[in-house]
Formats: sequence, structure tokens, C-alpha cells
Amino acid sequence: MIFRIISYILMIEIVLMFPALLISIAEHESAAIHGYLWSFLIMAIVAALMFVLTRNARKGFNSRDGFVTTGLTWLIMSALGCLPFFISGEVPNYVDCLFEMVSGFTTTGSSILTNVEALDKGLLWWRSFSHWVGGMGILVFMLAIVPLGGRNQGFTMHILRAESPGPSVGKVVPRMRKTASILYGIYIGLTIADILFLRAGGMNWFESCCHAFGTAGTGGFGVKNDSYMSYSPYEQYVTTIFMLLFSVNFSIYFMILTKHFKEAFFDEEFKAFWGIVAACIIVLTINVRNLYPTLEEAFRHSAFTTATILSTTGYATTDFNKWSAFAKALILLMMCLGACAGSTGGGIKTIRTVLLCKILRRNLHKNLHPEEVAVVEVNGRRVDEQIIRNTEAYLIAYRVIVIAAFLLVSLDGFDVETNLSAVLATFNNIGPGLGAVGPTGNFAAYSNFAKLVLTFCMLAGRLEIYPIIIFFSRKTWKKGR
Amino acid sequence: MIFRIISYILMIEIVLMFPALLISIAEHESAAIHGYLWSFLIMAIVAALMFVLTRNARKGFNSRDGFVTTGLTWLIMSALGCLPFFISGEVPNYVDCLFEMVSGFTTTGSSILTNVEALDKGLLWWRSFSHWVGGMGILVFMLAIVPLGGRNQGFTMHILRAESPGPSVGKVVPRMRKTASILYGIYIGLTIADILFLRAGGMNWFESCCHAFGTAGTGGFGVKNDSYMSYSPYEQYVTTIFMLLFSVNFSIYFMILTKHFKEAFFDEEFKAFWGIVAACIIVLTINVRNLYPTLEEAFRHSAFTTATILSTTGYATTDFNKWSAFAKALILLMMCLGACAGSTGGGIKTIRTVLLCKILRRNLHKNLHPEEVAVVEVNGRRVDEQIIRNTEAYLIAYRVIVIAAFLLVSLDGFDVETNLSAVLATFNNIGPGLGAVGPTGNFAAYSNFAKLVLTFCMLAGRLEIYPIIIFFSRKTWKKGR
Repeated sequence: MIFRIISYILMIEIVLMFPALLISIAEHESAAIHGYLWSFLIMAIVAALMFVLTRNARKGFNSRDGFVTTGLTWLIMSALGCLPFFISGEVPNYVDCLFEMVSGFTTTGSSILTNVEALDKGLLWWRSFSHWVGGMGILVFMLAIVPLGGRNQGFTMHILRAESPGPSVGKVVPRMRKTASILYGIYIGLTIADILFLRAGGMNWFESCCHAFGTAGTGGFGVKNDSYMSYSPYEQYVTTIFMLLFSVNFSIYFMILTKHFKEAFFDEEFKAFWGIVAACIIVLTINVRNLYPTLEEAFRHSAFTTATILSTTGYATTDFNKWSAFAKALILLMMCLGACAGSTGGGIKTIRTVLLCKILRRNLHKNLHPEEVAVVEVNGRRVDEQIIRNTEAYLIAYRVIVIAAFLLVSLDGFDVETNLSAVLATFNNIGPGLGAVGPTGNFAAYSNFAKLVLTFCMLAGRLEIYPIIIFFSRKTWKKGR
Repeated sequence: MIFRIISYILMIEIVLMFPALLISIAEHESAAIHGYLWSFLIMAIVAALMFVLTRNARKGFNSRDGFVTTGLTWLIMSALGCLPFFISGEVPNYVDCLFEMVSGFTTTGSSILTNVEALDKGLLWWRSFSHWVGGMGILVFMLAIVPLGGRNQGFTMHILRAESPGPSVGKVVPRMRKTASILYGIYIGLTIADILFLRAGGMNWFESCCHAFGTAGTGGFGVKNDSYMSYSPYEQYVTTIFMLLFSVNFSIYFMILTKHFKEAFFDEEFKAFWGIVAACIIVLTINVRNLYPTLEEAFRHSAFTTATILSTTGYATTDFNKWSAFAKALILLMMCLGACAGSTGGGIKTIRTVLLCKILRRNLHKNLHPEEVAVVEVNGRRVDEQIIRNTEAYLIAYRVIVIAAFLLVSLDGFDVETNLSAVLATFNNIGPGLGAVGPTGNFAAYSNFAKLVLTFCMLAGRLEIYPIIIFFSRKTWKKGR
């Protein structure tokens, strides 16, 4: 069953890669065309093999399988999806290719490329498009288009649970496939709006599409070496707004579409997120005011940076590496906060921060009044103790992984700022960090080992740890489980 | 009742300060003598005022009062205990004096002094002795010597809960006062052993005592500018061993004294702690091998550094600021781990790390098998869910405070490594950090505001957050609570 799903996914991936091939053909990029055709062949063979080998698959599908499927799908998709870069010879080191592809699918946007502009357009397109694919989750995409029958409702739920960001899966409508379709509809609609707004500002179609994909997936791969620095203020503002729009829980849009305005605007996560955004923009603007000639410019860069970090996108209009120590500390903090649950953004998610504050208050209260029963409420509804326990376990695992990765990456000998921000930027799927991996730098200087560690971080961050831990856990590979 | 206790404490503090005055008299240090006498006068007046004003105190004493008493006692004790430094004129800035005193009582060992050796001997003694007093907790000390009557058993428990490090208070014997006496007995015994071992190595009595106090309280104030660098290998090894001995839960010694060897050596925290110590020493020795001429020297410095950081003491035999990025990352990690519960050390405590790993495993399991009931066990006994919840809340609060302090301290404009390690070193009561606050640096360069933030961190770290949060919370100061 697991391999059957992966063979579907690989076929979908070939279809998704096709537009990139067309662009390469239009631009007469022979290396890229070469790369794509060979990749198609390899992927088709792998998919066919998997399909044939699993004809007599057993049908049982439990929660562990859901996690394993998700983990395995993302790994194989990345391992094969990066072949065009490798075969075309544009990125000669396979670990670099894998890093770049995982960075794409996980919507991280960290790059090992020192010169983005030298890449073929067909490859640039695929790089940006992978953000768009990964943002919503490719398995969710499959659920929306492949009919698996009502019998597999449980399976669908397991997958959604494993792939969706946030502490709990909110079903917009009772049927899972319907939910996935609606969310994808909103996603596509917003992306098209973004493309049109950028185009209206004078950006060409190719760049508009690439940037819209990167914004929609909150990824951050651009097509220029200086990211967003050379674009007009209008384009920067448009992207700021769209980055924030894509960080909001998509079910809020569904509520707005169905005219449940009150529910939408009084959602606690929604309110907390915009509160954090506003506070960060104001504090940053005041802090960096003196670095820019006009207040407008200070505000624009502060707003863009806040949006890019909180939404975990990773574009940059300015080298915030040169900002004050306080601004950099605030950026490190924002890196961890992240976007809202149910959006395409990464990080801890605002709802978890809200939950944490409530748990903390509850426990302080409980310490003083041990006899009282204290429940945690969000949006007026009681939060299940299991979700609270999961949230806490998530944060424990979060910290363990960050610390372990930080230790391993430190073996390369860069400074604390670079290493810590590299781990946080990849684990929270942001993209650039501070120091040597800042907005004007990249991850090329790290060793292959460190790149693999960071690749693991990106996957663990995107899939919210559990699928990846379970995938790599000893128990999963024991016989007769 | 609260003020009555504080007036007792202040009188005890005067008595504890007395030996320092005698040393100053013996050394003919007029400035210090002056400082001590005036301090005695002020403290006596404050104590008398409090005693008189609270003659008709109400007798009720709840859990919140326990926390408030603890918080207030530590604040007043530090605010008045630092007067000798201020009045003698040896440390002209009052914020510096307060920082130094809180650093002493909380057994942190961070210093704002750029030249320790210039200080009068009487002041140096008081500085080191404050570690010894703070290590075990001055309120616990009071409980051991002041008879409060059986009626106040509940009060005693509240205080112990608020002042003792670790997730739960282990009563060695059923009666609280007896427990406090036994623990203090072990503490005094070990300290005397440390003094004698150091004296045997040729250190003079004064330095032996000061260093033993610093080691016993896992504080880290020394009497030399270069900390432990100029002492002999024998003295360094003795201190390494004693730092580790003082990081072990004191109830282990009680078990050994009462011949419960099996219970003692199979204690999960005990095993985990020594496992971590051994692992860190080995890894560090390998990593820094090439920086030192002989393997013995690399091992000695690795062992000393591991012991000093894990026990949260803060002495240094070498400038680990010059070690590799990996070693520094490992040191940052060790800073958070800390010693064992029920010892004089700080940090998160090994038992919490053990608990965390178990909680994480439990939740991973629960995620896959939602129907099963999974309990967390330590030493074969089930851990109460309330303790688990408290541990998690502690870690949430821990992170919130670290992040907030990091942001505020960053306003001073130092680099990320310095600021982050300064916060971690003070919050975990270690002493020196990395970068500008490393073993050869100090905290003098920070602004008064940053020093106050770090002072708050030291108190919050030593009292394990709750008393300080509750003390500063709005609710505590509301009328008619």
C-alpha cells in the first residue's frame, strides 16, 4: 500500500515537472532538457517497478503507516526530483542537489547556489515550483485528485494528520477529499492573484510566476542573486502582503468565503498572529530607523523582513545581517515563532505559542490552587489534554533536534551565530539565517555532512518531526511489526 | 508572618557576615571594616522594624505565601548583603554590587569585577561565603536551626518546595526539620573534606576555604583573576572531583550513609548524570586533544570544564573560549543540562532531562497507539501527572525567560554568542559564558539595565522560576487576595 501510493506520487511528480521541461525547450537549454528527459525515464521506471511489485498489497493501514508513508514519500520525491539538477550537470554534487530539492519541497528556501542567475530557466522554474507543490503537501494534493474510495477514509485521515502543519487537523467540511479540494482552490486562487499583482507592477511573466510560487509556498527561492533587493517598492509591498496572507490558516478564508466573519476575525490564533506581526514591524522600524534615509524605507524593510521571517518565506530586501544585535536577536526569535497552523508556513506556529502561554498560566494557577480543576480553552472550546500533551512533546522534540543539529553542524567550525541560525532557518523552513548564511550568503560553504544534517532538519521541520522520527526509529524496521 | 521570617533571616545574615568582619580586622582593612559595621547597623534596623511591625501577624500561610516569602527573602538578603561592597567604596556602582551579591547567593559566580585580586580579603571571604550560604538555601538553613513548632509543618513544606531545586521535594526522613539538618550535615562534612584536601595540596587556609565555599555551593567566585589556571594539577583534580560530588543529589549520600547502596547506585538520575559526565569528558578530550601538549593536560582541562559547567560552578583552568566551534556548542548545551536535583547545582537538572526523554517516548508511543494507557516511570515508580505537567511548564517558562532576557540584553549591542551565553550562564547559575563574558572576561561591560536583567535571570534560575514569577505577578499585589 505504501509503495503503491509512492508510485502514484512519482507519476504526479513527472506531470508537475513537465511545464519546466517545456520552458527549457522554449529557451533551447539543452543541458536541462537532457536532465529532465533522463529524470522522467528513471522516475517512470521506479514508479512502474513499485506498482508491479505491490500488486498483491495488504490493505490494512494504521497510524504508523501513515507516518511512514509521508516520510518515505518526501524522501523519495526529493531524491528523484533533484535528478534534473544533477544530470544536467548544473549542480555537480549530488548532496547539493538533494539539499536544494529538499529545501524546495519543504518550502525552506535555503540554497547552496552561489550564483542563482547562471542556472537554466527551466531549472529555476522547477526550483520555485517545488515550493508551490510542497507548500500544501503533495499527499494532500493526491488526496484531492486520486479517488481512493470511501473505504480509505481512515487512511486519508492518517495521511492528513501526518502531513498537515499544526497541532490538530481542522476539517473544514466533514468529508476529507472535499476539504482538500477547497483548500487547494483557495491556494490556487491566491497564487493567481499574486501573479497578476506582480505582473501589474512590471515584472515579467516568468519572474512573476516563480516569485508567486515561492511566496505561496512560503519558500523563498528567487531568480536573482540579491533576492528581492533590486525590485521596486511596489513589488516589495505586494510580496509583503501576500507572504502574510499565505501565513494565515486557510480555514479562515473558508470562513470568510462562507460569510462567517465573526468566527474568522475573532479566532484567537488569527488575532495573536496579527498582533505579533504589528508589534514586530513597529519595534523593528524604530530600531533600524537610523540605518535608512527615509522612514518609509525603514518601514518597508522592517515590514518585509517581519513578513519573510514570520511567514518562514525567506526573501530579503535588505541585508538584515547588518542590523543591530537587538534586531538580529528579534529575528532569531521570530524564526522560531513561525506562521499559523493550516497555512503553508513553517515554524512552531502561532497556535502553539498561544497554547503554551495558556498552559503556563494554567500550571501557575494549579501550583497555587492544587485542588481546582483548570482547563485550557481556545476560542471558547476546551482543548483536549491529548493535544496539550502532543504540543508539549512536540516542543521537547523540537528542542532536542535543534540542539543535536547545532552540535553536529558546529563540527564545521563556523561561529555560533551562523550555526545556530542555520539550524533554526532550516528547521523552521525559513531559508537564510544570520552570519555566513545570511541573506547575502548561502549554505555552500558547509561540508556534505552538515548539509545532510540540515536536510534532515528541513524534513523534520516541514513534517513536524513525528513522521521523520518514526520513519528513522528502530521499531519501524523491525520484522513482523 | 512573611516579614517576621525575613527579620529572622536578616539577623542570621549578620551572624554569617561576622567572620568576614573578623578577617578584615585581622588584615587591618579599614574600608571593609567600615563597610561591615555600617551594613550591620542598617540590617539590624531593618530587621528590628520588621519584627516590631509584625507583632500582630496573622498565622495563615498558604502556597502563594511560601513562594512570595522565598522571593522576597532572596531579594532583601541580596539588596542588604551587598552593602559592604558599596559602603566600603570598593565597588562604587550599586547595581554592580547587587549583581555581584545576587551572583553570590544564587551560586552563579558571574562577576562584574575586572580585578578580583585588588579586593580586600574580608570582602573576598564574604563573596565566596555567600555561595556556601546560597547553595543549600538560606531558608532551609533557618528551618534547620530555628524552632517554629509543629504547627508550622505546612509552612515548612511550602518553603522547602519553593526553595529546593528539582521537580519534587524528596523527604529523606519524614520530619522536615530532621531532613534539613541531615542535608546540612552532609554539606558541612563535604565542605570540610574539600578544605582539607586543598590545604594538603599546599594552598593556604584562606584560599582553601574560599575555593571550598565556591565549590560546595557550585558558585565559582575565586580569589584570583585567572580563576583556577595558575593552580597545580593536583588542586585542579581535587576541585574537579568535589564539583562533581556537590552536583549529586544529597539524598544519595544519605542512602550511602544508611547503607542502601543498591538504591543509591541504581538511581536513574545518578546513572544518567555520570553517563553524561563521562560522555562529555571523552568527547571534549578527543576534540581538544591537539590544543594541548600532552593527553593528560587535554584530559585534565576537559574534565575540569565538564565538571565546572555541568555542576554550574564556573571556575576555569583554561580559556575554553579558544576551543573549537563544536566544543563551544557542547559547552552551551551542557550549560542547560545542569546538575542533579537536590544538589547545590543549577540548570535544568538531570532528572528533568530524564523525565523529558521518557515523556517524549511516551507521547510517540501514544501517537501510534492512542488506545493504550502509558505511564512514565522513574526508578520503577510511577511519576505523578502533576509533576510531569509542572516539568513541562517549567521548561516553557524557562524558554520564555531565556528568550525575553536574550532580547533585552541584545539592546547593548554585543554579538549573539556573548549575549546568548551570558543569559544561559546567569540563568543556569554557572558564571562565565563565551565570547566577551568568557572565562577571561567578565560582565562589567554590560549596561546597568542589562545587569539588572541578568540579575533577574540569576534569581529566577536559582529559585526555579515560580517564586520569582509569582512574586512579580500582578495578582500577588492585588488588594484582598
